[in-house]
Amino acid sequence: MIAPLPDSPFPGERLLPRRIGIDTGGEHVVYLPQASPACHGEGFGPHSRLQVSIGDRHLMTTLAIVQGRWLAADEIGLCESAWLNLQPAEHEYATLSHPSSVESLSNVRAKLYGGTLADAQLHAIVADIAAQRYSNVEMAAFVTACSGDHLTLDEVAALTGAMVDTGARLHWPNPVVTDKHCIGGLPGNRTTPIVVAIATSLGLVMPKTSSRAITSPAGTADTMAVLAPVQLDIGRMRKVVERTGGCLVWGGAINLAPVDDMLIRIERALDIDSPGQLVASILSKKIAAGSTRVVIDMPVGPTAKVRGMEHARTLERMLLAVAARFGLGLTVLGTDGLQPVGRGVGPALEAHDVLAVLRNLPAQPLDLRERSLALAAAVLEAGGRAEGAQALAVARGCLDDGRAWRQFQAICEAQGGLRAPGVAPYRHPVVATREGRVEAIDNRRLAQAAKLAGAPLSPLAGLAVGVRLGDAVARGQPLFTLHAQSPGELAYALEYVARHPGIVDVGAAP
Amino acid sequence: MIAPLPDSPFPGERLLPRRIGIDTGGEHVVYLPQASPACHGEGFGPHSRLQVSIGDRHLMTTLAIVQGRWLAADEIGLCESAWLNLQPAEHEYATLSHPSSVESLSNVRAKLYGGTLADAQLHAIVADIAAQRYSNVEMAAFVTACSGDHLTLDEVAALTGAMVDTGARLHWPNPVVTDKHCIGGLPGNRTTPIVVAIATSLGLVMPKTSSRAITSPAGTADTMAVLAPVQLDIGRMRKVVERTGGCLVWGGAINLAPVDDMLIRIERALDIDSPGQLVASILSKKIAAGSTRVVIDMPVGPTAKVRGMEHARTLERMLLAVAARFGLGLTVLGTDGLQPVGRGVGPALEAHDVLAVLRNLPAQPLDLRERSLALAAAVLEAGGRAEGAQALAVARGCLDDGRAWRQFQAICEAQGGLRAPGVAPYRHPVVATREGRVEAIDNRRLAQAAKLAGAPLSPLAGLAVGVRLGDAVARGQPLFTLHAQSPGELAYALEYVARHPGIVDVGAAP
Repeated sequence: MIAPLPDSPFPGERLLPRRIGIDTGGEHVVYLPQASPACHGEGFGPHSRLQVSIGDRHLMTTLAIVQGRWLAADEIGLCESAWLNLQPAEHEYATLSHPSSVESLSNVRAKLYGGTLADAQLHAIVADIAAQRYSNVEMAAFVTACSGDHLTLDEVAALTGAMVDTGARLHWPNPVVTDKHCIGGLPGNRTTPIVVAIATSLGLVMPKTSSRAITSPAGTADTMAVLAPVQLDIGRMRKVVERTGGCLVWGGAINLAPVDDMLIRIERALDIDSPGQLVASILSKKIAAGSTRVVIDMPVGPTAKVRGMEHARTLERMLLAVAARFGLGLTVLGTDGLQPVGRGVGPALEAHDVLAVLRNLPAQPLDLRERSLALAAAVLEAGGRAEGAQALAVARGCLDDGRAWRQFQAICEAQGGLRAPGVAPYRHPVVATREGRVEAIDNRRLAQAAKLAGAPLSPLAGLAVGVRLGDAVARGQPLFTLHAQSPGELAYALEYVARHPGIVDVGAAP
Repeated sequence: MIAPLPDSPFPGERLLPRRIGIDTGGEHVVYLPQASPACHGEGFGPHSRLQVSIGDRHLMTTLAIVQGRWLAADEIGLCESAWLNLQPAEHEYATLSHPSSVESLSNVRAKLYGGTLADAQLHAIVADIAAQRYSNVEMAAFVTACSGDHLTLDEVAALTGAMVDTGARLHWPNPVVTDKHCIGGLPGNRTTPIVVAIATSLGLVMPKTSSRAITSPAGTADTMAVLAPVQLDIGRMRKVVERTGGCLVWGGAINLAPVDDMLIRIERALDIDSPGQLVASILSKKIAAGSTRVVIDMPVGPTAKVRGMEHARTLERMLLAVAARFGLGLTVLGTDGLQPVGRGVGPALEAHDVLAVLRNLPAQPLDLRERSLALAAAVLEAGGRAEGAQALAVARGCLDDGRAWRQFQAICEAQGGLRAPGVAPYRHPVVATREGRVEAIDNRRLAQAAKLAGAPLSPLAGLAVGVRLGDAVARGQPLFTLHAQSPGELAYALEYVARHPGIVDVGAAP
């Protein structure tokens, strides 16, 4: 249909890549001077999407235009993430081209207009996101389109499969590979390090990869990063598992289902969740990690992520149905989600709780201990090591006699060495304004206060909860103490707490 | 609940604002050096949202962190849009603070989870967007949440009212103020300049504000900008209307419903539409512009924005219902949306067509002429000037005897002077690969090709359509000709056309 072109389509302007040291924290941004021939010759303007090629590496980027003299006409500035992706060698030039239109965006649009996406359509979306062809705004539209109850079971399964297919996939020699996961929303619920220590000390294989916080004040990887190196590549992770039977590493360094992490970055900015994406996120990571038996901790409570029994049942059904399609054995454990677990909320504060339980210290938080034991028992059952009450007794014995603690130390040593967590320099108690009894705790607002105090990016930040539901408190007694690494963050959290006085609800004394 | 704070919450680091000349084309971005005390003292990191204050001006911004030496530790770099918003005077300092959490985002989340928003909730969202408190990603979530059929009639009315309330509002001394609007999707359908010329030459008041293209290759404001200055403030616009009864200006310069334009910027990046937002967008602009009688041109066709009669009826019902709540008289005219109107697609190419009709040239596109007359007749009826067949005859006479052309020249002169449109330097015909008959034209892909050729940002770019449905064509005959202002854009559009060979579908000769 087209007559031959008079010239080559792109004159192929060769630009000098320059590392300008700007960290945008997300999107790949490149900078061209207003005088650049690329702006005139190719019609690029501010916020254009363009493809930058250096050697055989290509990257989709967003353009900013620079006025003034700090870039020469034949230069292109690269932000840190673009530089690290493209890795220009000396004497290498960059060329620019218009990105081919991202066709899978029409699938996102179809979903917005109420359509149902086929397997191939979701694979196309996920492949384009994996190839970094989506801008932040486009990813936000996809995340939003999938939120609420907008995904069917078939779509969730397709999304799961697509996310597995676009990343690394681990294979283990063992026929049974166990794993656990907690559906968040319950501050301080840091059972994973304890469960892994118990299960692997009893001979099960549990190569645990964890995520950083999505919308919470700490993920397991954030807490473990306080205690030991967690950023291991696949080879080093494998060595740790060969030596100890387990590990506690950050999944992001392993490149399992990397699209999940990209979506999570946007979900975090938006602070939204979707059951379908949640299921795909959890199961894609587990499948990619090579797990065969998985235990899910699902706290249920009015201010937990899963708010009620109906929501819990929907999510459990979806989890079991999608897991079955991938041949994954799954146990879902509904747990009490009414109040925080342990005392600490925030990476280091939770690490202190984990150590207290593992070391069996007198001051350990008993609720964290009991939850960890229940989950460890479920993992032992799933792994065929013991059943029912006996599984719980075996787990308890292992924690009581110090085997779990020795095993945890062995894992941390194998990962690079156990470290002692610190304490934040700025602390401020939030006290009861009257005598009475603790009637309710708002997990969401408590988590929000910990986040405003700086968690998880400031690892020592967060808060320590001093009371539990039903406790009698005196006027002036601390309910929780905010921890921060800067005075500004402390003030920010305190301002939020002042605006929301009922985070720990103290009812009148009887 | 809180004991008094030991110190002032923010040490109030005073930073030197520096204009660094980066045009991000959207979000307000500020730059801090890694060594900045604000990063350590306040816990800010890449992609943090932060509030910058200079004097009594405040702006919500997104942070990028700069490594290396091009910002001093006590400096803060401002991108162009942040600089223009904050306008630092010499010797003025910038201070930073954590933005108070944007509470209306919880309304967006509620909407995503299937809730219905009350009037006050939508007002809160729109007010926060107007105050520039939403990031691009957050606006994308709101736009997406409102897409498809997700808004109820009450929500659409509330959104309309909120958008009117957050901008300027025009008032006219005349009891009847007419207006027209076309629901896009039909390339080249540039009737507005002709309708305004006819209606105002017959004594009606029609102060027309138009938008730039949202997802199309040209909006009326883009085409008019080729012919005359369109960026008039309210005072100058008022003078033009007083002198001529009408005007053809860009609405963005008048600040009518500015939130609509901010949402449109995101919709444009996403290329999505929503009936509810479409209705709120159209009606808020008309209400804010002080119009009392509005005619809507609604082209219906499988590849137009309104794809079928059911969709058309839904949209018409919603438009009439919401307009009635605001006391606005509305006429909706369903029109043929099967193929482009006129020959040109793109700002200047459409301007050539408009001039040909107004000047009654022999080579004028008759379809554009007839559509304009039908709409002008509807405006005359809505304005009480004539009825039925008589209205059409009056409009036709006014075009035939040169009154409309003289009136159009008068309006352009009053706006700053009529200009002659140019022609793009790079052109390439797309030809029929076989003999046959034109059976269908894909408006969406045709528009996409014109956009890839550079329209509307390159005003001379776009394409000229050489055939109409039912035309017999010979092998090698041009179907349409691409116009571009750069070889790269021409190549980009040609590459797209090559990948989509059926844009003009030529059926086998009988």
